[in-house]
Amino acid sequence: MVYRIGIAGCGTVGRGLVALLGEKREYLEKKYGFRFTLNLVSDFIKGTVASDDGMDPADIIKNLNEKGDLRFMKEAQEVTGTNPLANLLARTPVDILCDATPTNYETGEPSLGILRTAIQSGAHAVTCSKGGVGLDLAGLQELASAKDVQIRYESSVLSGTPLLNLVRGPLAGCVVEKVMGIVNGTTNYILTMMEGGAGYAESLKEAQRLGYAETDPTGDVEGFDSAVKVCIMAQEFFGRKLNVAEIDRQGITALTVSDVKTAQAEGKRIKLIAGIERNGDSVSGYVKPIAVGLSHPLASVMGATNAVCLTTDSLGDVTIIGPGAGAKETAQGLLSDMLSIQALSYR
Amino acid sequence: MVYRIGIAGCGTVGRGLVALLGEKREYLEKKYGFRFTLNLVSDFIKGTVASDDGMDPADIIKNLNEKGDLRFMKEAQEVTGTNPLANLLARTPVDILCDATPTNYETGEPSLGILRTAIQSGAHAVTCSKGGVGLDLAGLQELASAKDVQIRYESSVLSGTPLLNLVRGPLAGCVVEKVMGIVNGTTNYILTMMEGGAGYAESLKEAQRLGYAETDPTGDVEGFDSAVKVCIMAQEFFGRKLNVAEIDRQGITALTVSDVKTAQAEGKRIKLIAGIERNGDSVSGYVKPIAVGLSHPLASVMGATNAVCLTTDSLGDVTIIGPGAGAKETAQGLLSDMLSIQALSYR
Repeated sequence: MVYRIGIAGCGTVGRGLVALLGEKREYLEKKYGFRFTLNLVSDFIKGTVASDDGMDPADIIKNLNEKGDLRFMKEAQEVTGTNPLANLLARTPVDILCDATPTNYETGEPSLGILRTAIQSGAHAVTCSKGGVGLDLAGLQELASAKDVQIRYESSVLSGTPLLNLVRGPLAGCVVEKVMGIVNGTTNYILTMMEGGAGYAESLKEAQRLGYAETDPTGDVEGFDSAVKVCIMAQEFFGRKLNVAEIDRQGITALTVSDVKTAQAEGKRIKLIAGIERNGDSVSGYVKPIAVGLSHPLASVMGATNAVCLTTDSLGDVTIIGPGAGAKETAQGLLSDMLSIQALSYR
Repeated sequence: MVYRIGIAGCGTVGRGLVALLGEKREYLEKKYGFRFTLNLVSDFIKGTVASDDGMDPADIIKNLNEKGDLRFMKEAQEVTGTNPLANLLARTPVDILCDATPTNYETGEPSLGILRTAIQSGAHAVTCSKGGVGLDLAGLQELASAKDVQIRYESSVLSGTPLLNLVRGPLAGCVVEKVMGIVNGTTNYILTMMEGGAGYAESLKEAQRLGYAETDPTGDVEGFDSAVKVCIMAQEFFGRKLNVAEIDRQGITALTVSDVKTAQAEGKRIKLIAGIERNGDSVSGYVKPIAVGLSHPLASVMGATNAVCLTTDSLGDVTIIGPGAGAKETAQGLLSDMLSIQALSYR
């Protein structure tokens, strides 16, 4: 089949996905037999374009580059109603809707609504936003199951570095017993700078200058971002719903260079660890700075790189290390989810 | 469907697989919907048992524990003909044949013959032996394609630590551009000991005492084992057939404690790296000791642990670290391949 793709959100990641789809069209067809048309791109600010015949990704990128807007394209659409996406999908149905909108931790919106609307329309849903899946993954899975479609969210944890799909597929048969991860690049970058002797404030400023940290860094440095990811992993690996409020959460704002140096002197390195543990029937999650020994696989993960170490029953520790952010990286995660949907669908 | 499973080779790994299947039967059905019967176990030394109704894994383990042999079981079979496995499979057909025989690098046997026979019989083939797939992966894939079955060989590189299936599934969409790995635990264990100040001979002896190294350690220490794995990865990731003789191969036998210490003094660590590089259209493989900087993700991989760092187009470097040997670990790799076969088959 030819997959009709829609993209909600055309910021850095959405645009990265449009570009990646354009660049890789031939490769995807040749290597994976994956054929697609790009039928819908909708952004709250930049406008909406849609076409039953599909649009040229290069055309969309050109418009974004030259005009920063989609409203001048011939495929531009009026957006109407209380649920504009539902109306758009009714007019221009898609087989896979990719949600690349920014996250609001507290409400899960707009991601949650987008994913529900997409699934209700009969489309598979793929997201890189941790908003919706962090808040109500079980509910979304139930809805997807009822509509006989898939929901996938690889990029919501480590951007394109595969973790969720690693456990689903290549690690199938293994039981995950424990999780320890560095799932926030901003804080890891700050901690790496502090090891070099810079203070917390200076390191944060540098992370902001480089675009790793936002102007209001609370979500990262207080561990909220990591905590939402813990919730996603708890549901995915342990089938257990945890809320952010249940996570034993401590950020890095109270850390001093002296704490970092003390750990170094003890042959350790302080990392903001996002972890999940199982005790009998109970599953608990935490986010906190931990001094890990240098021989621990997470100790050598520096800068904005992310990593997760899974303790499993049959393999012991398995660690995956890779990028945790970036437009192309996150778009790759969305793409891999689409290829998984194809691989696991009846052909 | 209920998969009829056969196992060729009942040494440490084959027996580990029988045990794992027994332990995980309920879990596999519940979590993956994977149902199986164990219909055939055949070992050159311990004999062959087969049954159309399936056998109890616990029964087989009990016989191996108590008698070290399968010939006393009621399901014991006469083995006859020039291709005994073909005759066995004609009498007791299976849907998946797991090859867990030891490897001969040069001839690829008995693995190569077992895999061909299994595929010819119409069974999916799964192997942890690098013999057959190292020598003629392309030929086996062609045969499998002609017979409309799958051949899978995750465990042939890093035992159960997923690498090949990681690239096939979760990393789908990415192009692998470069490979650097520690794919031999014996040599990495020896190098780790040498960092502690032990000489090569002493370290080798300790590795032999612990069962990491064989009595004749040539295959490991001269880099043949790693070179065969390079051939498998070259075919898998680059679609390119390399022979062991084409690999630029150098072992660790000439390394001295002084070499190791010199690297340490330069902030580096010597690792036996198995690598693949692409230059334009040409793909070349190597196995050699390389002093990698301590910030390299392979530098902190110590002892018998294995790891592979893949450089990709969309994600940059992605590294997976995990066990590279062990009965249960290798059996898990075989199991994950079986679950992949199920996931990717028409249901």
